[in-house]
Parts: sequence; C-alpha cells; structure tokens
Amino acid sequence: MPREISAFSNPLVKRVRSLRDKKHRREEGLFMAEGLRILAEAREAGHLPDTLFFAAKSAPHPLLDRLIAETEADGGEAIATTPDILHKLSGKDNPQTVLGVYRAFDTHLGRIDRAEADLWIVAQALRDPGNLGTILRTGDAVGAGGLILVDDCVDPFSVEAVRATMGALFTQRIATASWEEFVAWLRAGEGELIGTSLAATTDYQAPRYARPAFILVGNEAQGLPPAYEAECDRLVRMPMLGKADSLNAAVATAVMAYEVINQWRHA
Amino acid sequence: MPREISAFSNPLVKRVRSLRDKKHRREEGLFMAEGLRILAEAREAGHLPDTLFFAAKSAPHPLLDRLIAETEADGGEAIATTPDILHKLSGKDNPQTVLGVYRAFDTHLGRIDRAEADLWIVAQALRDPGNLGTILRTGDAVGAGGLILVDDCVDPFSVEAVRATMGALFTQRIATASWEEFVAWLRAGEGELIGTSLAATTDYQAPRYARPAFILVGNEAQGLPPAYEAECDRLVRMPMLGKADSLNAAVATAVMAYEVINQWRHA
Repeated sequence: MPREISAFSNPLVKRVRSLRDKKHRREEGLFMAEGLRILAEAREAGHLPDTLFFAAKSAPHPLLDRLIAETEADGGEAIATTPDILHKLSGKDNPQTVLGVYRAFDTHLGRIDRAEADLWIVAQALRDPGNLGTILRTGDAVGAGGLILVDDCVDPFSVEAVRATMGALFTQRIATASWEEFVAWLRAGEGELIGTSLAATTDYQAPRYARPAFILVGNEAQGLPPAYEAECDRLVRMPMLGKADSLNAAVATAVMAYEVINQWRHA
Repeated sequence: MPREISAFSNPLVKRVRSLRDKKHRREEGLFMAEGLRILAEAREAGHLPDTLFFAAKSAPHPLLDRLIAETEADGGEAIATTPDILHKLSGKDNPQTVLGVYRAFDTHLGRIDRAEADLWIVAQALRDPGNLGTILRTGDAVGAGGLILVDDCVDPFSVEAVRATMGALFTQRIATASWEEFVAWLRAGEGELIGTSLAATTDYQAPRYARPAFILVGNEAQGLPPAYEAECDRLVRMPMLGKADSLNAAVATAVMAYEVINQWRHA
C-alpha cells in the first residue's frame, strides 16, 4: 500500500529534491525522471524506480496502477503526495503527476558491447542538457546502441537531460570516458570514427559508411579539437548554404545519423 | 561618444531589462540580442541596434569598435556599462560583453515573397524557444527563405529564442499567421506543403520534392492536428528504428530539410 506524504518538511522530500544537484546525485547514486510516459518507457526497458511519487488525487490510470504495483513488488516504495510537493521535487511549473527515483546506471565504457548495434554516437564536451537528451532520443530513433560521453560533458542524469531524452535514457546505453580511454577502447575493436567538421572537404553523402559506425560530435561552441578530428577515419561536412557556419550539435548529429542509416537501408 | 551607465537604478536599464517579458517587447516594439558574434551577424544582414550596451572595461576589439561607430552613425546610442548591469539585462550567469536592443521586425505574412527561396519552414504551435531558434538556424544552413509561425507559437523575439538562432533571426524572414491565413496565402501561389507524421505510410525519401517546398512541423507534444495533415500535399515519415515514436521537432525539421536539399543538389 502506498504511504502518503503531504509535509514539505518530510526528510524524503528534501532528499529527493536534492537530486536536482549533480553532487547529490553522485553521492546517492540516484536520479529522477518525471512523467507517466517516460516512466512507462523505463518500465518496458526493465527499469523500475526505487521510489515512485504520484499525485494522491490523480485520476485512476491503468498504467499508473501497474507502475505502483510493480514498483512495490520489486521492493520499491510508492508514495502518494500533493501537486505542491511534486512541484517542489521537479522544479517545474507544471509538474507531471508522477516522478520516479532511479538508481544511476554504471557508465563504465568497458560495459559497452559494440556488437549490440551498428551505430553509436560519441559526444565530446557536450554542455547543454537539452542537446544531450535530444541526441539520446535521436539515437533511439536511428537504432543506435547508445551514447558515449567523452571529456567533460553535462550530466546525462540531470533533470533537464532526462526530460529531453523522452525516455531514451532507459533504452540507450550510456558510457563516460576520457578521450584517451575512448580511443584505446575504439581501436581495440572494429569500427569507423566519423567526425563532422567545418574544415572537412568531403561531403557527408560521399563516403559509403561501414558498420559499426561511430559518429563523433563536438562541443557546441568549439566543435572538435584538431587532434580529435585527426583521429577520425572520416571527416565530412554537411552543405551549409546560408550565412551561419555551423548547425546545432543535436541537429548535426541527427542529419549525419540519418545519412548513415539511409545508406544502409537502401544498400 | 558612448555614455556610461553604472547605476542599476538607471531608467534605461530597467526599461531594457523589461524586454525579457513578451508584454513589454510588444509594447515597445523592441527585442534584445546578445554576443558579439550574433550582433556582428545582424550588422552584416543590415540590422544595427537602437541601443548597444558593452562592457566598459572589455578588451579592445575591432568588431566591437566598428559596431559602436556604426550604431552611433545610424542614430543609435552606444552605452558603456558594467558586467553586473549586463548580467542584469541578459539574465545570464555569464553575460556576453555586448548586448543590442533592436526594433522588432514586421511579421505580416503578406511581406513574405516566396520567390526569394526554394524552401520555407512552417511551424505550428511550437512552444520551445530553443527549438524555434534551432529551426531558424537550420533554415539558414539549408538555404531556406524563412520561418512561418502558425497558430500560438513561442515568441521568436524572446531572449532564449534569439540566443538559440545564433544570429539566424537576422538572416531569415519571419512571419506569423493563423492556420487559415497561412493556407489561403500558400494556395494563392506555387508550392508543396510537406508534413511529417507518425500516421504517414510514405517514407520521407520516396517522393521527389518540387520547388518551392514548405516543410510543416507540428507542436512538440501533439504533432500536427489531423486537419492540418489532411491539407498537406505530401505526408511522409522518417524511419524510427527504436522504441520512441517521435523525434525532437527541430531534429525532425532538419532531417526533412536536408533530404529536400540533398535531392535538389544531386538532381
């Protein structure tokens, strides 16, 4: 049976709210995700929350009922609460009526099995949580295996990033590594590293991309460092017909990824 | 000669700061853009600010000097100020060292000349300023003429949207219209309306797209209303190979737009 919490001063409320800070997420090994749609996606991917908060007065919903029952059967706790507390937890003006606290995933690069997919996305020093979330969501759409975060990227378990993934955080693999670790891992197996660069002279539609393909996207402001570009097996550029000299990082990743899978599905 | 403002209580500081609210932008017919890169892009596109704020102690920069001189020659005012006031104006933790106040553009649909470009982007009820900005930036990259905002979209002159355009706000045309106004305008001339939809059965690479092409993107959460889909000359879908059922709106727009221009450049 779900217990009820309606006091802002409840220590659990404070503790969960603190998960909005990276420091506390690290210490607790937990993160939060909001919204029935994302939590249902997580459940389908085999992830149930440690703690599930839902609005006590929300209309009955079979998906929510199932989430509550399965969370409790899995040893987790379901907690009925108020919209005000959900607002306090999520920090959103229009909080979702359901919020889950999940154990953070092990993001060691060694846990990635490249044979699981033909396509992987690698982001370097990505700073914007919305871009990170959007790239994971795109990864899901193009059938990528997951996202490898190289160097100092924004935390994929931040509330904003999780929100932008629309659930893909639970269906895509995530790893973090230094550039040196990543390159050593990459070169220990098969795979072509594909970078997009303003300096490239090869059109992105010219090469025939081999499997597995690793698409490398650089920092939003700086792009890829020259040494990283030099490591790429293919360095390509998209046509830029206007005045601007770059695309949004998540957009560039998606345009590149669709080119790769389009080649493969027409081959 | 630029004057100096260092008092928070200065009425001009208050007035410019109020431009972060849509209501005040409307009343004043003004909006703000930040960052030397974006302001330089605006200048190249023929837009000089009414008022230019810059950090009094910023390192000399030829681009900034030229902006100051041209703003003053154009009848505008250049104001040297403090980092604290720039922070207060922009609302950003790391404010740019330069901020311009511009007259809002006339966004009547009747001012759009479709003959100016082969590609136009149309967004319906787009809610996220980052998506709007990213779509404008993509529009610039694919050589689109501009963005037509249909129904209740987020304000393209909001600080967040302007920031995300990376300057494309000044190089792309912008119009706002109701759906009825847009359809009447569209059908009074040439052009194919291309919608992307989960309900579509046609792969987005199957049709041969004709010029001018109007790419229609729907609201982030709901997608396009059925009646709007019915109005499309082409309704297509991108392959979705994962668990998710949709792409981020700005990503979907970019993938679609690159397909259209790729067809044309290979034709």
